[in-house]
Amino acid sequence: MIEDKNQQRTQLSDLGEFGLIDHLTKHFEIKQTSTVKGIGDDAAVLKFDDKKVVVTTDLLVEGVHFDLSYVPLKHLGYKAVMVNLSDVYAMNATATQVTVSIAVSNRFPLEALEDLYAGIEAASALYNVDLIGGDTTSSNKGLLISVTAIGTVENDREVYRSGAKPNDLIVVSGDFGAAYMGLQVLEREKEVFKVNPNSQPDLEMYSYIVERQLKPEARQDIIKLLRDLDVKPTSMIDVSDGLSSEIIHICKQSEVGCDLYEEKIPLDPQVISTCEEFNIDSTTVALNGGEDYELLFTISQDDFPKIKANPNLTVIGFVKEAREGLHLVTRADTRIPIKAQGWKGFND
Amino acid sequence: MIEDKNQQRTQLSDLGEFGLIDHLTKHFEIKQTSTVKGIGDDAAVLKFDDKKVVVTTDLLVEGVHFDLSYVPLKHLGYKAVMVNLSDVYAMNATATQVTVSIAVSNRFPLEALEDLYAGIEAASALYNVDLIGGDTTSSNKGLLISVTAIGTVENDREVYRSGAKPNDLIVVSGDFGAAYMGLQVLEREKEVFKVNPNSQPDLEMYSYIVERQLKPEARQDIIKLLRDLDVKPTSMIDVSDGLSSEIIHICKQSEVGCDLYEEKIPLDPQVISTCEEFNIDSTTVALNGGEDYELLFTISQDDFPKIKANPNLTVIGFVKEAREGLHLVTRADTRIPIKAQGWKGFND
Repeated sequence: MIEDKNQQRTQLSDLGEFGLIDHLTKHFEIKQTSTVKGIGDDAAVLKFDDKKVVVTTDLLVEGVHFDLSYVPLKHLGYKAVMVNLSDVYAMNATATQVTVSIAVSNRFPLEALEDLYAGIEAASALYNVDLIGGDTTSSNKGLLISVTAIGTVENDREVYRSGAKPNDLIVVSGDFGAAYMGLQVLEREKEVFKVNPNSQPDLEMYSYIVERQLKPEARQDIIKLLRDLDVKPTSMIDVSDGLSSEIIHICKQSEVGCDLYEEKIPLDPQVISTCEEFNIDSTTVALNGGEDYELLFTISQDDFPKIKANPNLTVIGFVKEAREGLHLVTRADTRIPIKAQGWKGFND
Repeated sequence: MIEDKNQQRTQLSDLGEFGLIDHLTKHFEIKQTSTVKGIGDDAAVLKFDDKKVVVTTDLLVEGVHFDLSYVPLKHLGYKAVMVNLSDVYAMNATATQVTVSIAVSNRFPLEALEDLYAGIEAASALYNVDLIGGDTTSSNKGLLISVTAIGTVENDREVYRSGAKPNDLIVVSGDFGAAYMGLQVLEREKEVFKVNPNSQPDLEMYSYIVERQLKPEARQDIIKLLRDLDVKPTSMIDVSDGLSSEIIHICKQSEVGCDLYEEKIPLDPQVISTCEEFNIDSTTVALNGGEDYELLFTISQDDFPKIKANPNLTVIGFVKEAREGLHLVTRADTRIPIKAQGWKGFND
């Protein structure tokens, strides 16, 4: 998990900007017929026929969004692409291209960036997207990654956050809280490592939750599944900031309320056992942990028969009228208002 | 030029991420019919019929690409958008949308970001592009801006760097070296200000070159002009890193050589006089200064009658066979090889 500090290092200044981009991206293949021209000109050129184009972008900053003392660079590259594809899927669209820009300080040797791009390439291959451009520059401090993802969706198939209607069912893919608990385990190991640098952490009993933190996957499969089931959600969002934050977005933009049922929120057994070990409430973790990259969506009750047997999907509540507010219905059958946790990014 | 340090300040942490994006972008209007959905969902949605889509992205880092001690934030926002639009025009395309992401440290109050976005809005209005998305996050140090620009071009109208043919004419818009000399003047004034903070610089005699540095313009008008003149360049690039660096890109990707004529390179009188004042060779500045954001392109000799009378365009040389190499033909009629200056970004 901890990088070997004694590898051979190539200084970035030996290559220059153009050499660096060529070097890092020369193995990337063009997979999409919509990619007319990729890297190497002032701009990439794409061509889509009779489809809508979807665009999303995200910025990942060292020390804010990731800690290189326990995130391998290859995983970071993978995740930087994946979090953007997750936003494309949340529009009910197919991801087709990405651009990746990095700002990087001199402390990173070429080999570090090769690892980063190996992760970008692995994600591009798995999700079948083309890397079509980017920018590479120096920074005064640390590493920053900016990714823009592009996708397509057939006319009238796109799904916004704003379409939820009272009585719709609230559905999620996968389970929640695992990435957050994986982070708690990794941070504990980092503290142990500080005291004893020769310690070899045994993370096997935390394998699922650590993988959910280090190598999360966007739910491309759910978009295909919904198409196969002939279900078009009335609203959809991906869960990056925690279930409660995302349901608030859906309700605010759809001008509705909701009831979520605590007992219905899917939790992996490793999340439950690790929450017990850390003495944290698992529902709180599921609602506020974040980085799950699952899909949260609403469907008409008419579509319930199509999804009810599917093990990938769980109904966790109902859409209500706006005046009824947003509530979590607990196992003890009490109703607790769902509130925004606020965003801590600017509070140091 | 220097910011008033005693303005009223609003802490970014008072707003939170979602409040901040809403606050900064609420005045932006949607202008393009291709913009189906802008800011406010997981991704923006665009729709283009029978056209190719062009995408480009750039990263601007404080201390590397800009110095806030003499660049007002409004100008910086304007320039961040403009440099990306310049890349879209260099494809012979029309710019239609931009995304803007920023990473910003706590030392910036809300009012500073409002200034930055006022510049982004001014550029969006002048160039008729829609702001459709972005990301706002904190950084540990300084300000970083990532812009992605999107445009459209009719089928077979796009122009790459790779199409130049021997005997084509090499043409440029505008003049060169002004932005670089403007920067020299601003850096001199910064040193004066350090010694005497009450000094009021008189920059009137440098007005053109300072404006070319602080508020450069992308040549949207040249793309329209070429269309009106019924000229499709064989290759094109925008001049961001200096004329010599860009002609090397064209020649390398087109597998050709070139002769550039020193006496033909357009220079503004203010560039010539300021070069004399600073004792710098004006041709060196024109070739290597950069940040001109003019267009450099090649055309078939058959198209020469269409452009020869136009005051916006200057023929500066000829495309040659690759084996003849790249040369500057000086006023003294000597031939000097054109070489890459290398990229200094990673050399501290």
